[in-house]
Amino acid sequence: MGDLLGVAVLGAGHMGADHIRRLDRVVSGARVVAVADPDAERAKEAVAAIAGVSVHTEAEAALAAPGVEAVIVASPGPAHEEALLAAFARGLPVLCEKPMVPEAAGALRVLEAEARLGRRLTQVGFMRRYDEEYRGLKALLDGGRLGRPLMLHCVHRNVSSPPGFTSAMLIDSSVSHEIDAARWLLGQELTSVTVRRPRPSSGAPRGLLDPQFVLFETDGGALVDVEVFVNCGFGYQVRCEAVCEAGSARIGDDRGVLVTTGGGAGAAVPQDYLVRFADAYDREVQAWVDATRLGRVTGPSVWDGYAASVVAEAGVRALESGARVPVEPAPRPDLYALDGH
Amino acid sequence: MGDLLGVAVLGAGHMGADHIRRLDRVVSGARVVAVADPDAERAKEAVAAIAGVSVHTEAEAALAAPGVEAVIVASPGPAHEEALLAAFARGLPVLCEKPMVPEAAGALRVLEAEARLGRRLTQVGFMRRYDEEYRGLKALLDGGRLGRPLMLHCVHRNVSSPPGFTSAMLIDSSVSHEIDAARWLLGQELTSVTVRRPRPSSGAPRGLLDPQFVLFETDGGALVDVEVFVNCGFGYQVRCEAVCEAGSARIGDDRGVLVTTGGGAGAAVPQDYLVRFADAYDREVQAWVDATRLGRVTGPSVWDGYAASVVAEAGVRALESGARVPVEPAPRPDLYALDGH
Amino acid sequence: MGDLLGVAVLGAGHMGADHIRRLDRVVSGARVVAVADPDAERAKEAVAAIAGVSVHTEAEAALAAPGVEAVIVASPGPAHEEALLAAFARGLPVLCEKPMVPEAAGALRVLEAEARLGRRLTQVGFMRRYDEEYRGLKALLDGGRLGRPLMLHCVHRNVSSPPGFTSAMLIDSSVSHEIDAARWLLGQELTSVTVRRPRPSSGAPRGLLDPQFVLFETDGGALVDVEVFVNCGFGYQVRCEAVCEAGSARIGDDRGVLVTTGGGAGAAVPQDYLVRFADAYDREVQAWVDATRLGRVTGPSVWDGYAASVVAEAGVRALESGARVPVEPAPRPDLYALDGH
Amino acid sequence: MGDLLGVAVLGAGHMGADHIRRLDRVVSGARVVAVADPDAERAKEAVAAIAGVSVHTEAEAALAAPGVEAVIVASPGPAHEEALLAAFARGLPVLCEKPMVPEAAGALRVLEAEARLGRRLTQVGFMRRYDEEYRGLKALLDGGRLGRPLMLHCVHRNVSSPPGFTSAMLIDSSVSHEIDAARWLLGQELTSVTVRRPRPSSGAPRGLLDPQFVLFETDGGALVDVEVFVNCGFGYQVRCEAVCEAGSARIGDDRGVLVTTGGGAGAAVPQDYLVRFADAYDREVQAWVDATRLGRVTGPSVWDGYAASVVAEAGVRALESGARVPVEPAPRPDLYALDGH
Repeated sequence: MGDLLGVAVLGAGHMGADHIRRLDRVVSGARVVAVADPDAERAKEAVAAIAGVSVHTEAEAALAAPGVEAVIVASPGPAHEEALLAAFARGLPVLCEKPMVPEAAGALRVLEAEARLGRRLTQVGFMRRYDEEYRGLKALLDGGRLGRPLMLHCVHRNVSSPPGFTSAMLIDSSVSHEIDAARWLLGQELTSVTVRRPRPSSGAPRGLLDPQFVLFETDGGALVDVEVFVNCGFGYQVRCEAVCEAGSARIGDDRGVLVTTGGGAGAAVPQDYLVRFADAYDREVQAWVDATRLGRVTGPSVWDGYAASVVAEAGVRALESGARVPVEPAPRPDLYALDGH
Repeated sequence: MGDLLGVAVLGAGHMGADHIRRLDRVVSGARVVAVADPDAERAKEAVAAIAGVSVHTEAEAALAAPGVEAVIVASPGPAHEEALLAAFARGLPVLCEKPMVPEAAGALRVLEAEARLGRRLTQVGFMRRYDEEYRGLKALLDGGRLGRPLMLHCVHRNVSSPPGFTSAMLIDSSVSHEIDAARWLLGQELTSVTVRRPRPSSGAPRGLLDPQFVLFETDGGALVDVEVFVNCGFGYQVRCEAVCEAGSARIGDDRGVLVTTGGGAGAAVPQDYLVRFADAYDREVQAWVDATRLGRVTGPSVWDGYAASVVAEAGVRALESGARVPVEPAPRPDLYALDGH
Repeated sequence: MGDLLGVAVLGAGHMGADHIRRLDRVVSGARVVAVADPDAERAKEAVAAIAGVSVHTEAEAALAAPGVEAVIVASPGPAHEEALLAAFARGLPVLCEKPMVPEAAGALRVLEAEARLGRRLTQVGFMRRYDEEYRGLKALLDGGRLGRPLMLHCVHRNVSSPPGFTSAMLIDSSVSHEIDAARWLLGQELTSVTVRRPRPSSGAPRGLLDPQFVLFETDGGALVDVEVFVNCGFGYQVRCEAVCEAGSARIGDDRGVLVTTGGGAGAAVPQDYLVRFADAYDREVQAWVDATRLGRVTGPSVWDGYAASVVAEAGVRALESGARVPVEPAPRPDLYALDGH
Repeated sequence: MGDLLGVAVLGAGHMGADHIRRLDRVVSGARVVAVADPDAERAKEAVAAIAGVSVHTEAEAALAAPGVEAVIVASPGPAHEEALLAAFARGLPVLCEKPMVPEAAGALRVLEAEARLGRRLTQVGFMRRYDEEYRGLKALLDGGRLGRPLMLHCVHRNVSSPPGFTSAMLIDSSVSHEIDAARWLLGQELTSVTVRRPRPSSGAPRGLLDPQFVLFETDGGALVDVEVFVNCGFGYQVRCEAVCEAGSARIGDDRGVLVTTGGGAGAAVPQDYLVRFADAYDREVQAWVDATRLGRVTGPSVWDGYAASVVAEAGVRALESGARVPVEPAPRPDLYALDGH
């Protein structure tokens, strides 16, 4: 590809700062060129390690900054509508964190604005669609091997809810992930919703109706149920089981997609080391690039490379002789004395 | 960080081309500036999509090319020694694919050369040290909770071996990964090796002694056993169980590290969505950058954002009323008619 | 204990014949002394292998037969009420298959009759209460370690439904197991019920509303949801997850009870071989008793006992010497030539 | 079957007492008629709850007691040879605990004695052959679906070893189970053995070489390796993985047999409730018989049966109406007030 994509990031809070770090340190092909936050100090801090980023307190100013070719909207939800409309006005592609717009009325205004443009500019930040397990489940459902999906059983648990979390937010903030995931996995729209709830957990803040149990019907004749429990205390768990006419498939417990059909219950086994260790290769090279840019050398050393050769040669002799073969390396140079493996 | 690190890649075969793609499309902070391969066409093809890369048939020429600040050695093993010595001569940091040098004698020459420099320039490509599960196991062993490691049980299975694979290569190519992983995990050197083998599998090429069972002793009083089976036919499986004085820990079967102690057998549960979905966020943003640079918009649309709002609002009303509440969105604009979820 | 309990079995169909076999071949301390079935041939066949059993076509006659001290009611549901009242009249202890009485009105008459007796005579055949996993889950919930139960998520799947199975039977036959299990596990009564259903599976017989999703509330403020799917096609699966204030626990997927708390997700590890192999010991001795009564000898032979000694002695020498020690047994006598291990 | 088999039990220690309980309370078709132990008090105690058992201090006297038709040898190993020869002299069928005879020389004398009889009288107590998982693995290997077995990887761990346990006993007592299991699973004889060991665990008693790693070769060209660790501290674990030409199969971790083939990794799903709940039915009826013989009534009550009917009827109305239907039972009679579910 060609030059790096110039990105303005709106919002330098938790999520915005994380996206800035990601663009700078993880993702290939883009660079942060502008940042906006009402708190200028916070904005400066978020880009302190990056050269050449203009800092603004107004979203509009960041969008107008030199070099901006695209926008990430990571400001608080109530600011999204204005930010999206401003980006549309400039024709800038947008990655907008969820909720796109908190209220359906405002979301509809954004929808109508983009529809008037006649082309999509926006990718909404429903990140589960990019999770390996969700993608595996989606591919499985789309492939048709399990037949028509009948039900999705979903679980969404958080250790604890942040301050100010309300009973409604269990649905419009937490369950909104399952709403999108269900629509995406099934390719169907949700048509009704029923909510039941047990007596709240004593682990939930007083007055918060937590947990809740939400039951959707879809226009394709499927059911979707969601346990949402944001003060479960024991972990962050996201599970989804699709029950289909010819089998079921579950994610969130084990590696990959656990499929149950007439043949048994099980998961695919990777067929190739590039699949199994794809992330390891990526991290290896990223670690090398990062260290090298800092003038450092880390990771497996030449001593490690040498040791592997010496041991392997002894192993081949052991294979040939059937005997126990000692491994006898040269002395370890001081340079490698403290590499601590 | 500052400017992008200029990298020369030696070798444009399977592994070299993959590293070129990785530097260009996945990893942040580096760019390919030179490539060398005896097959100039292959080298050209590997960098066809990248602007400004000089192509060479000699490694030396690539190292001398303008902008080269670091080297990835991905040429065939027998070419590594010369490439490493040439990089050392120029003081260039190197990421060298394994085997560092196939023969112990050559590996020793490289070791002595780097030792003479008095500083490390080389990271050897034992990528398992960067795998999330191996790192989790290493951290667990180093943390000391399980006590001193007594044994490592390792399994290394490939679907099938490539043409020309010899009985010795089960050890010096395949098991070399376990050799490094065991040394790293234990922080100990291997001191002896014994090999036993069953009657070869009928699934192996005639004459290949496959599978084999390799048993190492270490200078710390531990045992390491490895099943290596490169024509198992059913999948790529890498497992490692560390049996320690106070518990055991296993990777390769399930998500993360399965630990057995007096308290039971189990795995950690993530405590945070940023941990559980870290990769999803990275892929989401990478997908957005990639699409945007191509002038495209993909992923969840404004319709998806709007639908989530409408459903969530109905859900909150269902929570309040206890009744089944219908979901009633505005009509879907044509722009989103074919987004196919 | 003393003499064997004399049991009359009412009903010689699938379930009745299985109970007769169980009393005769599996369970200790009882013997079948009478059987009744309107189909006398079926009754005779069910007890053909057992000496001294009187065969009847009327339940009343079987109850009055000599030696009857207790009754198993395994006749069709509509016959249960009369059978139970007859047993009550004779003061006979009863094990009554489920449903105790199909209609609530009849069940109430039985309840009132036993209550008038002022003592319990009846054990109802909800066998899940005797399943090892359910008992483990019950003990865990009662123990209080996980805190108050908030929700039970249940799954009940059958490969296919028998002929004549109706949409109502998904609830009053299949889900009746979960109704009892939920009441027992929670120690709470169910107070309301809601049923939702997707478009029926194409694998279900035409007109059968299968699957269904049933949602109960309890007088203790808990929720119980049940997926019932009697034509799932792929297996018999019964799962139950209890979500509590301080953790969750699930049965039906793996061995034992999978518990998730703040410490991770895992299962207990047996601490003793008598626990792990309790069933094996029982089956071993039962197999020996059965074979001996038939004048046969099966199972591990003296050759197997001898071989274990010879190998073990070689193993001890190998431990002492560090060498590979050959195993050299005496020739195998012809008697053991064909024992086929 | 006919009358109960009269069994003499030799040895009233831990194992003998357990077999006496098993014959009396668990197994169908046999009764204990004689017991022998040098410690007469111990013998009396072991049969205190059983009527009509003669108590002896000499094995020979127990074998000669009236009604003895078969023998269980559960005395200490050194007494087995004499007991077996005495049983052979009387033509009595024997179930002999392992080790059949501790020394190979004595085992050979027993072998020759039974061979002279020309018929088998002895079943040796290798109880793993009766374990459900081992039987499943054996059936899978015999069925041939996975092809020829190449290797067995075995793990045998105990929490702690009993007093007096020696380094040799890790092999001749603990690994003897794997010796038999391997011979049985493979249908092959073991031909050589090599033992390696790490530095002993600090959790092992001083001087005990624990753990050990034992490697066998077989006459069928297979390898068998065994980790034996009798002071692992964390649990009793027995695992066995069979690596075959066309797949692998593992027991000891999860329910049933985990099979990995080209199609993935997984386990069979039961197809029938009588399979899934077979043990529950057996325990249910045994519990009923036991309680009834003691004049007690336990388990699910008529109230439970009635409650199930009332709830199910409400459920069917909920299915028909789509509404939330309240459950309205009659008042609970006092008789059932305290049944505590």
